[in-house]
Amino acid sequence: MSEVGIAILGYGDVGRKHLYAFRNIRFHFPELSIVPIVRVVYGRRLESVKAFAEKYGIPRYSINMDEAIRSDDISVVDVALPNYLHHVATFKAIDNGKHVICEKPLAITAELAWEMYQRAKDSGVLHGVVYNYRWLPAIQLARKLIEIGVIGKVHHFRGMYLEDYGADPSKPLSWRYRKAEAGSGTLGDNATHVIDLARFLVGEIVEVCAKGATYICERPLPEDPSKKGRVDTDDEFVSIVMFRNGAIGTIEASRIAHGRRNWLEIEVRGTKGYIVWNLNRLNELELFIEDDIQSNGPRRILVTDAKHPYIERFWPPNAPIGLVDGFTIAFAEYFKAMEEKREYIPNFLDGAINCSVIDAMLKSWQEGKCIEVRYS
Amino acid sequence: MSEVGIAILGYGDVGRKHLYAFRNIRFHFPELSIVPIVRVVYGRRLESVKAFAEKYGIPRYSINMDEAIRSDDISVVDVALPNYLHHVATFKAIDNGKHVICEKPLAITAELAWEMYQRAKDSGVLHGVVYNYRWLPAIQLARKLIEIGVIGKVHHFRGMYLEDYGADPSKPLSWRYRKAEAGSGTLGDNATHVIDLARFLVGEIVEVCAKGATYICERPLPEDPSKKGRVDTDDEFVSIVMFRNGAIGTIEASRIAHGRRNWLEIEVRGTKGYIVWNLNRLNELELFIEDDIQSNGPRRILVTDAKHPYIERFWPPNAPIGLVDGFTIAFAEYFKAMEEKREYIPNFLDGAINCSVIDAMLKSWQEGKCIEVRYS
Amino acid sequence: MSEVGIAILGYGDVGRKHLYAFRNIRFHFPELSIVPIVRVVYGRRLESVKAFAEKYGIPRYSINMDEAIRSDDISVVDVALPNYLHHVATFKAIDNGKHVICEKPLAITAELAWEMYQRAKDSGVLHGVVYNYRWLPAIQLARKLIEIGVIGKVHHFRGMYLEDYGADPSKPLSWRYRKAEAGSGTLGDNATHVIDLARFLVGEIVEVCAKGATYICERPLPEDPSKKGRVDTDDEFVSIVMFRNGAIGTIEASRIAHGRRNWLEIEVRGTKGYIVWNLNRLNELELFIEDDIQSNGPRRILVTDAKHPYIERFWPPNAPIGLVDGFTIAFAEYFKAMEEKREYIPNFLDGAINCSVIDAMLKSWQEGKCIEVRYS
Amino acid sequence: MSEVGIAILGYGDVGRKHLYAFRNIRFHFPELSIVPIVRVVYGRRLESVKAFAEKYGIPRYSINMDEAIRSDDISVVDVALPNYLHHVATFKAIDNGKHVICEKPLAITAELAWEMYQRAKDSGVLHGVVYNYRWLPAIQLARKLIEIGVIGKVHHFRGMYLEDYGADPSKPLSWRYRKAEAGSGTLGDNATHVIDLARFLVGEIVEVCAKGATYICERPLPEDPSKKGRVDTDDEFVSIVMFRNGAIGTIEASRIAHGRRNWLEIEVRGTKGYIVWNLNRLNELELFIEDDIQSNGPRRILVTDAKHPYIERFWPPNAPIGLVDGFTIAFAEYFKAMEEKREYIPNFLDGAINCSVIDAMLKSWQEGKCIEVRYS
Repeated sequence: MSEVGIAILGYGDVGRKHLYAFRNIRFHFPELSIVPIVRVVYGRRLESVKAFAEKYGIPRYSINMDEAIRSDDISVVDVALPNYLHHVATFKAIDNGKHVICEKPLAITAELAWEMYQRAKDSGVLHGVVYNYRWLPAIQLARKLIEIGVIGKVHHFRGMYLEDYGADPSKPLSWRYRKAEAGSGTLGDNATHVIDLARFLVGEIVEVCAKGATYICERPLPEDPSKKGRVDTDDEFVSIVMFRNGAIGTIEASRIAHGRRNWLEIEVRGTKGYIVWNLNRLNELELFIEDDIQSNGPRRILVTDAKHPYIERFWPPNAPIGLVDGFTIAFAEYFKAMEEKREYIPNFLDGAINCSVIDAMLKSWQEGKCIEVRYS
Repeated sequence: MSEVGIAILGYGDVGRKHLYAFRNIRFHFPELSIVPIVRVVYGRRLESVKAFAEKYGIPRYSINMDEAIRSDDISVVDVALPNYLHHVATFKAIDNGKHVICEKPLAITAELAWEMYQRAKDSGVLHGVVYNYRWLPAIQLARKLIEIGVIGKVHHFRGMYLEDYGADPSKPLSWRYRKAEAGSGTLGDNATHVIDLARFLVGEIVEVCAKGATYICERPLPEDPSKKGRVDTDDEFVSIVMFRNGAIGTIEASRIAHGRRNWLEIEVRGTKGYIVWNLNRLNELELFIEDDIQSNGPRRILVTDAKHPYIERFWPPNAPIGLVDGFTIAFAEYFKAMEEKREYIPNFLDGAINCSVIDAMLKSWQEGKCIEVRYS
Repeated sequence: MSEVGIAILGYGDVGRKHLYAFRNIRFHFPELSIVPIVRVVYGRRLESVKAFAEKYGIPRYSINMDEAIRSDDISVVDVALPNYLHHVATFKAIDNGKHVICEKPLAITAELAWEMYQRAKDSGVLHGVVYNYRWLPAIQLARKLIEIGVIGKVHHFRGMYLEDYGADPSKPLSWRYRKAEAGSGTLGDNATHVIDLARFLVGEIVEVCAKGATYICERPLPEDPSKKGRVDTDDEFVSIVMFRNGAIGTIEASRIAHGRRNWLEIEVRGTKGYIVWNLNRLNELELFIEDDIQSNGPRRILVTDAKHPYIERFWPPNAPIGLVDGFTIAFAEYFKAMEEKREYIPNFLDGAINCSVIDAMLKSWQEGKCIEVRYS
Repeated sequence: MSEVGIAILGYGDVGRKHLYAFRNIRFHFPELSIVPIVRVVYGRRLESVKAFAEKYGIPRYSINMDEAIRSDDISVVDVALPNYLHHVATFKAIDNGKHVICEKPLAITAELAWEMYQRAKDSGVLHGVVYNYRWLPAIQLARKLIEIGVIGKVHHFRGMYLEDYGADPSKPLSWRYRKAEAGSGTLGDNATHVIDLARFLVGEIVEVCAKGATYICERPLPEDPSKKGRVDTDDEFVSIVMFRNGAIGTIEASRIAHGRRNWLEIEVRGTKGYIVWNLNRLNELELFIEDDIQSNGPRRILVTDAKHPYIERFWPPNAPIGLVDGFTIAFAEYFKAMEEKREYIPNFLDGAINCSVIDAMLKSWQEGKCIEVRYS
């Protein structure tokens, strides 16, 4: 048994989920010889980060990123900061020889993302990106069913991630609405998850044709709500995607979709059937397969059986899990990879590819034509 | 009360639905002074058309299109033939001074469709295209709700029409799989309905970016199943669509989607809410609107109330109607327009525009870039 | 080909549905040698029945029931009158040697219902009761699946029929709210359908334990809304049912269930799986069966395939039908039985048994104990 | 801040969920001054309990119940043992002056349950029963909506809890199938939750009429599967329930319902609307209320908003929680009550009443008549 110290950078909603996940890893994965311990949390506002650390019993806190990272008892840096700080924090972590887990999107540009991948690879640290939805039992089951050919050769994908957090125009111009800090809007925040699931379930995307839109062009400044600032990131995006294996499909994202929350839905169709999944009902999977009975139709699988991926670690038989449990699995697998001294996937290569796809989408929007995805 | 004689051209599944609809118009619309009477059915195979006429009690049948059309007791020609005969039959009808109802897509090319529109307009006959889904009560309600601003300004549309009739590769190479006879594949057969609903609910489409795919490239020849012929129409299509009013969206169609039948689904999102409808549950409409109650969520409206469009003519209170009832409404409205000596909408202008959108989608696929829709 | 003259007694919502169904029988069942013709409609108010006849093109109308029934060109009497007139009209029909179709419930008491059965049987006329839901393709498929053992031995049934037509206390005291005219409330109006489906799918009911409630005890008098009259029929009913084959279950009905309309839902569970159906989605059937694939779950069958019962007569492939089509099938089967000179089922025996079950439920409510159903 | 030591009795699926919940209380309820610490686990098999303690890092384990309970550093005894040990363990806890949390059903007979209540009350310890579903945010919201009158006066309840864990006849005759150890079958295991929710949402139950069934009458003996033993507890149960406030309804439970897992579903109907909830989709609530818009229908509320009960403590905005989180809330509220020196509800009084209802159901089954529930 060996303790592994973690520095969490960021104490927002995401950082808080990470903390919970780290702390519950060993309950669900008791066979791990690694004991992950969150030792320090970094944030930019002293009072807030202090309050967070005290509230959740984290031994140390800091507003100095270097300090938080470089300590000897820290082996893993978990980057849960705004997008524009992902590469900054990651480079510091690598320079200090620390392993890194980074939130999505990996970086605010594809160029930076590929550089992060290159430097992480060269340094030999264990790198991972937090694509937590990959790890949910229903998605793992979907992947397994596709792999064993249950729905045949895949020829179609439709995915969307709709949120309404930006639907209210009076919401302030936070970093997500500024290109310099976010890289892109709903594309980097939401579509990136769809892209990741598309790649996980169907394969690599080679070409895109896309259109975006910013409907709410100005928002009140956080520092002075009587003034407004310009939104220069996308509110909505739609894209056609072409896969290496010949499949086609669409990806859609929105942050202004009234009444849609966590509406991450995917459909994968093949030559023998299809699969549908929606994050709102994350424990269910819809599956259609040809069947010899005359009375066929799509099945609603409740993915809470001990036979289903990871479920035996949760609450068999049959208790629905929650969204945050996906983080627990994601991080547990990271530490398993560490224990077994092998790569973790999805890692920075996935992160960089996902950024390349976004890059191609943005370019397609600008140029009004289909764009190939660059894989370097 | 005046009888109006109808010649139905075509006695397939579609012609049969038309016949049923014509016969039930006066039950649901007893105030009409017009009494529509189907007097003749035309078909290309003598025995079959004769059998059809006898089975359903149609007074005359013919394998001579001119003969079927030109008779003095025929006022309306209903074209329910394969796509490549739409313009042929329509031109004959117009030349004989008959009113025309034509199935979708209006023609196998946009050029022919615009010519049909021009000639129908010049001749003064009453022209209509059979976009039956427009007329379903749930769609009529959706239109009404959008018009009165319930979901605000529309900024997004997603529509798809998925079928599986072509999923089996052993299905013969019928006219739908040949470009010369069908014009296009799932695009003209299925996507055209989505395009029509998009225009009906959101507005005109000005630009598209599209990709198609033909996965099953050969099929057995109907005349000799031991030989195969080439499929040169699309099995699947995805397209981005840009609306004149600034909305964006996607349209998707497939004829090889295993397990999806009559899966015509649309979502319209606006600045205040959204609407979802699916043909499989044609009597329901999902509506999300902001609400002062803390406990908000999308509503499932059962569109079977006497207050809902057309329902008082069917089975109030509360009996679900069937798909074919949409044809009855479509045709009743055609005769109402005749009675009131005004245009019927959707007419050949709609038919031509819908063909222009398809044309642009095909061109976009070929050229790998976004294409403007031509409105002439 | 022989014409069979029909007298419809009653011109309300139900009579109108019957008329529509009679007129469409031959379209869907062209092989019938019988041509059903509605020749006369009877009603109690001259102006209304005249208007109905004219609106729908029925040759004759009458406010004299005997006159409407006894005419030589009438072979079938269709009773679509308020419950308390069912036996009156039926006895007249039998006395005149006419065949009878009667709406549910067969009579306002079980005694009368059994007398109707006895007299119809003795007279040799063809008797049938309108349990239209039995005939819907999804229910027919359910029966077939149960018969071939797909869900094993049935051990459980749950059925309910919820309506909201009586939810508004300002609705007048029509005949449905008076025991003398209706026999019972939601029990005879709605629960009777559930009882019929239970018997059709599971088997005979031998014992019941039931409770009813009348929540809205007074309603405005139709003749003078400023005064109120007492409601002496049930607004809601719940019952335990015990089947001859050992299965147990519950039946529930309401006419004051806000937001529930045509909410007729049944679940049949057996030793190998279950079936669920809801009238709101009448073209669907949910089926769960054990399966060798690890990924099992209930299937949503779209009962619109040509292989499904009756669908080839409607709109194959895949067009949802409407509720009223169930009447068309019910009546077509009645005339098929007439043609083939055999019994029609469900007939007055079924009608009488269903009334006996209701009788037992009422008695159980009164006596506070379980009551055996009398089969005579 | 004060540590409170807990002894968990039982290390099965339920005990494991309790452990998880105890450990996550302070994450979600950081304001608590109490720090719950699980110090010992008791079990009947040494090796197993030892393995459990080691796997999950519990400091002590024991096969001596007295020893586990009486230690000075233990303040709370959590009883997660088979039903027949609930009273035994509880009496020991009370005798040692410990607070008690006990799993449902409180006891194997109503008599014992009332005695437990009396002794707990007299002793002054803090007593609670684990009705975890009460605490789920969707149920809490339902209660709140009902309390503020959103659905009007409640007049109907339907609830069911269907499981399939006993559907396979080859499953061994564990304690759940023996009356001496379980008290009852699906009634005490599943229906008890429905009863508790019915009381929580509607009010006290005063009378029941019920029927049960045991379909699988023999099962292999755990100690020797070649021999079979008799099952003397119920596989299925249906009951009519009459509430003090005049509402009526039904409760149903099964442990042999193929394809139904965690199918705990409730419907509460009132004079203005209704509420439906299903544990399979525990983050959703269906609500129908009258509305001035013509386009009304039941809403699907996603109960994951910060405004919803407890959600701010989990993952706002909008992340679905899991079933086990209900235990966390249940226990957190127990410690809050401890901190505030007040009663916890649901406590042993609720546990005893719920047992009385079960008792009345069993009696009603035996006697074939309605039975009043005894409240002492």
